[in-house]
Amino acid sequence: MRILVSNDDGIDSAGISALVYALQEIGEVTVVAPLKEQSAVGHAITMQVPLRVIKYNKNGEFWGYAVNGTPADCVKMGIKNIMKTPPDIVISGINQGSNAAINIIYSGTVSAAREAAIMDIPSIAISVTNHSATDFKFAAKIAKMLVHEIAGKKLPVGTLLNVNVPDIPEEQIAGILLTRQGKSKWDDIYEKRQDPYGKDYYWLTGNLVEVDTEIETDHAATKNNYVSVTPIHFDLTDYKTFDMMKSWNIERLLHAKEN
Amino acid sequence: MRILVSNDDGIDSAGISALVYALQEIGEVTVVAPLKEQSAVGHAITMQVPLRVIKYNKNGEFWGYAVNGTPADCVKMGIKNIMKTPPDIVISGINQGSNAAINIIYSGTVSAAREAAIMDIPSIAISVTNHSATDFKFAAKIAKMLVHEIAGKKLPVGTLLNVNVPDIPEEQIAGILLTRQGKSKWDDIYEKRQDPYGKDYYWLTGNLVEVDTEIETDHAATKNNYVSVTPIHFDLTDYKTFDMMKSWNIERLLHAKEN
Repeated sequence: MRILVSNDDGIDSAGISALVYALQEIGEVTVVAPLKEQSAVGHAITMQVPLRVIKYNKNGEFWGYAVNGTPADCVKMGIKNIMKTPPDIVISGINQGSNAAINIIYSGTVSAAREAAIMDIPSIAISVTNHSATDFKFAAKIAKMLVHEIAGKKLPVGTLLNVNVPDIPEEQIAGILLTRQGKSKWDDIYEKRQDPYGKDYYWLTGNLVEVDTEIETDHAATKNNYVSVTPIHFDLTDYKTFDMMKSWNIERLLHAKEN
Repeated sequence: MRILVSNDDGIDSAGISALVYALQEIGEVTVVAPLKEQSAVGHAITMQVPLRVIKYNKNGEFWGYAVNGTPADCVKMGIKNIMKTPPDIVISGINQGSNAAINIIYSGTVSAAREAAIMDIPSIAISVTNHSATDFKFAAKIAKMLVHEIAGKKLPVGTLLNVNVPDIPEEQIAGILLTRQGKSKWDDIYEKRQDPYGKDYYWLTGNLVEVDTEIETDHAATKNNYVSVTPIHFDLTDYKTFDMMKSWNIERLLHAKEN
């Protein structure tokens, strides 16, 4: 099995090493990851500056490629330019910090995997629910299990798995659950400061408003010590509203008098 | 009506002026837009550098606020920090270039409107299907029509409208259609060049593979001279696969012998 690994914490992060180490046991691993941390870049791609690719030795742990771009750039570059033929699967992570509920939208980790799904390649995004996580061994084991699972069961083209692993000792893990994206979201706060020259600047902070109680949602599952596995896709159409809006007859608007 | 306007082409773009000009006829407009062009940044938010807000006079056309961040940053900053109370609606655009099919994923224009939807505020992203579009009058008229329509009919919380307007003379417009997100996507190409110092760099280019033929999809609608209106949301769960995966019984994985 040929596996492409990327992330958003950058090639120098600890999480990617744990992932590479585990996946090398089951396949041939190519690493293409951002040279610098790219958290919260969402599905950004780089079009206004050119990309550079550096062959990179990660502290003697592995050889990979570092790109001066985003996670989505790395996956495109890996598949279209670095690997001779497309990989069998793409794994993004292991991220420090949960990518559940609204965080899926902002996540570079998820976007790397989503870019693979767009290119018709099965993929997994995997995160540990703690921004200071240091132990990635259990999450790496989960990644390996899911690679086997996907290979055997066939994930539909265009779907990826978004996986969140509680940052607790393995023996406290309650199990593994199939989940939906939760609805918890941030109440943003801009912290205002003044620079030494008297000018204002702002840092984005905030509190996650936890509204998910049902255990079959990603955020609630991890809060209850379950590993959460959510199938997500890139068709953003709101079909319920699409059906409802048929009754609006918006076609009439261009024939009505201008408002 | 209080309206927040943002975009991804930056506060100095022509498209935002046309939008502001039209919307000022029907409400009180606040502009919070990126200081510099932010195309293809997706739903990136800025967390590694602080944000600055500049009160900005756009060539005497309007006063607004310019932010050194992404479209999603601008909407958060506008709602949470600049406006005293949240706006009734957020409009993002008018973008130069189609944001249909796969481009929705990469679009900063759409992400600005999506950020508003996340904050429970009705929103519209609007684009003209030409990267060199210069006439935004008709698209601005469409935006105004849809603001009225949303106000009257009530868009569900969490849904936004993604609107694409063909860049053709108004009399050639075939009508307005309710659409789904199409499946056309890019076949990426990395163009390799060498800098004056002998080092390689890459520009992302590519061809859009047009697979959408059904007129009820965004890309096909605009190709057939229709204005396309697509309701989209930020729940990325793939419910079809969620139901299918129940038969996988992934719960068993943590009880099975390690692979």
